Amino acid sequence: MKKYSKSEILDAESIFRRNFCNSLPGFKSLNLIGTVDERGNENVAIFNSVVHIGANPPLMGFILRPLTVPRVTYHNILATGHFTINHVHAGIVEQAHQTSANYATRTSEFSETGLHPHFEDGFVAPYVAESRIRIGLKFEEKHDIAANGTIMVVGAVQECYLPPEIVAEDGFLDLAAAESLSGSGLDTYYQPTKLGRYAYARPGNKAELLSSKEPNED
Amino acid sequence: MKKYSKSEILDAESIFRRNFCNSLPGFKSLNLIGTVDERGNENVAIFNSVVHIGANPPLMGFILRPLTVPRVTYHNILATGHFTINHVHAGIVEQAHQTSANYATRTSEFSETGLHPHFEDGFVAPYVAESRIRIGLKFEEKHDIAANGTIMVVGAVQECYLPPEIVAEDGFLDLAAAESLSGSGLDTYYQPTKLGRYAYARPGNKAELLSSKEPNED
Repeated sequence: MKKYSKSEILDAESIFRRNFCNSLPGFKSLNLIGTVDERGNENVAIFNSVVHIGANPPLMGFILRPLTVPRVTYHNILATGHFTINHVHAGIVEQAHQTSANYATRTSEFSETGLHPHFEDGFVAPYVAESRIRIGLKFEEKHDIAANGTIMVVGAVQECYLPPEIVAEDGFLDLAAAESLSGSGLDTYYQPTKLGRYAYARPGNKAELLSSKEPNED
Repeated sequence: MKKYSKSEILDAESIFRRNFCNSLPGFKSLNLIGTVDERGNENVAIFNSVVHIGANPPLMGFILRPLTVPRVTYHNILATGHFTINHVHAGIVEQAHQTSANYATRTSEFSETGLHPHFEDGFVAPYVAESRIRIGLKFEEKHDIAANGTIMVVGAVQECYLPPEIVAEDGFLDLAAAESLSGSGLDTYYQPTKLGRYAYARPGNKAELLSSKEPNED
C-alpha cells in the first residue's frame, strides 16, 4: 500500500488531483437531471452524486458544484421547484457524457446531444425519453457546504416511471436488468453484474446469501 | 413504463417502500466507515451513500440516518473528530454486510464480523485491514436535513492508502482492478466491469471514446 498524504494530493497537478479525488468515493450512480427555466427552456446534465436520503417520505439528494459560474440546473430548480432524475444506461452513454460539455446557458443539451425531452401531464420538468428509470421530484431544501461552496439539493419524489418487469414483489428494482450504469472518476463508465443478495443482518449470525449471480450469467 | 405516484409509494408496505426507494438512486458506492469512541472502543459499519464533495481541498460526504436511536458512527466522529472510509471488495462482502446488524452499542463489529482494525501512526480512527482503498478523514461539518432528520457529514481527506498499481499517471484509480464493489437497494452487491472512458466533453463534438473494456475482458 502506498500512502498519499493531504499535502501530496494538494501539491499534485490539478488534473491528477481531480481524477484521484473523484475516484476515492468508489463506484457512483449515474443520472441525468432534467429541468426547465421560467420560460420553458429545457436543460439536461449528467450527475454522479445522487444519493438516497429517505424512504418515508421518499427523498433523494445530489451535490452541485460551487456557484462560481451560472449553474443552469440549480437556477431552474429554484425557478420552477421541480426536477427529474433519469438513470443512464449503456445505450445512451455517449449522449449522457456529452451533456457535461460547457454549452452556452440557453442552449438545450437535449437538442445538442440527441437525447429527447419527455413531458408527463402535470409535471413541469422534462424527463429523458431514452431513460428507463425516471423520477420526478419537488425541490425540498438545500444546504450550502461551507468547506468548498458546493451545494446539496434535496428533493421529494413525486412520481416514478419504470419498466414494471424490473420491480420485484418486495419493491427491489433490478437495475442490472434495466442496464443502469455506474461511474468512476469523471469520465469512466461501468456495467455492474450482480454478485449476490444477502438477508437482513442480525447479531450472532453470519451473512446469509439469498440469491447469487443472475441465472443467465453462468 | 408503469407510473408509481408518491401516494402509491407512501401507501405501500414499509418493506416495499424501503427496497423501492433505496433502489431509485442507481448503483451506489459501498464503503466501511471506521471510528473509535473517546475510550478507544472501535466501530465499523457499512454505508452506501459516500459521495465526492470536492478535490481542492479533497472532501467527501455521506448520509447518516436520523438520531432516533444511538448512532455510534456519528457519536464517535463528533467525539474524536476523525473517521476512515474503506472500500468494500468481493473478498469481504459477507463481513461488510454483517456490519449492518444491530449490535449492542459497545460491541465492536470488527471482532463480531472478522474484519480487522488497522491503525496508522498519528491517525486515531481505525482503517479496515482487509480493504484495498483506505481514506482517513477529519470531520469538517454536518448538515441536518429538515425533511426527515437525516444528517449529511462532510470530512476532509487527510491521507489515503492504496495499491500503487491502480493509480494511473493522471490520478485516475482503477477501481475494477481493486475489485471495489457497487450496491443496489440495501442488500445487493455488484461487480462493475468497465465499458469505456471518454474524453473531456466539448460543445459541438461527439463524445470521444478514449479506451474501452479492460483488455482481459474480451
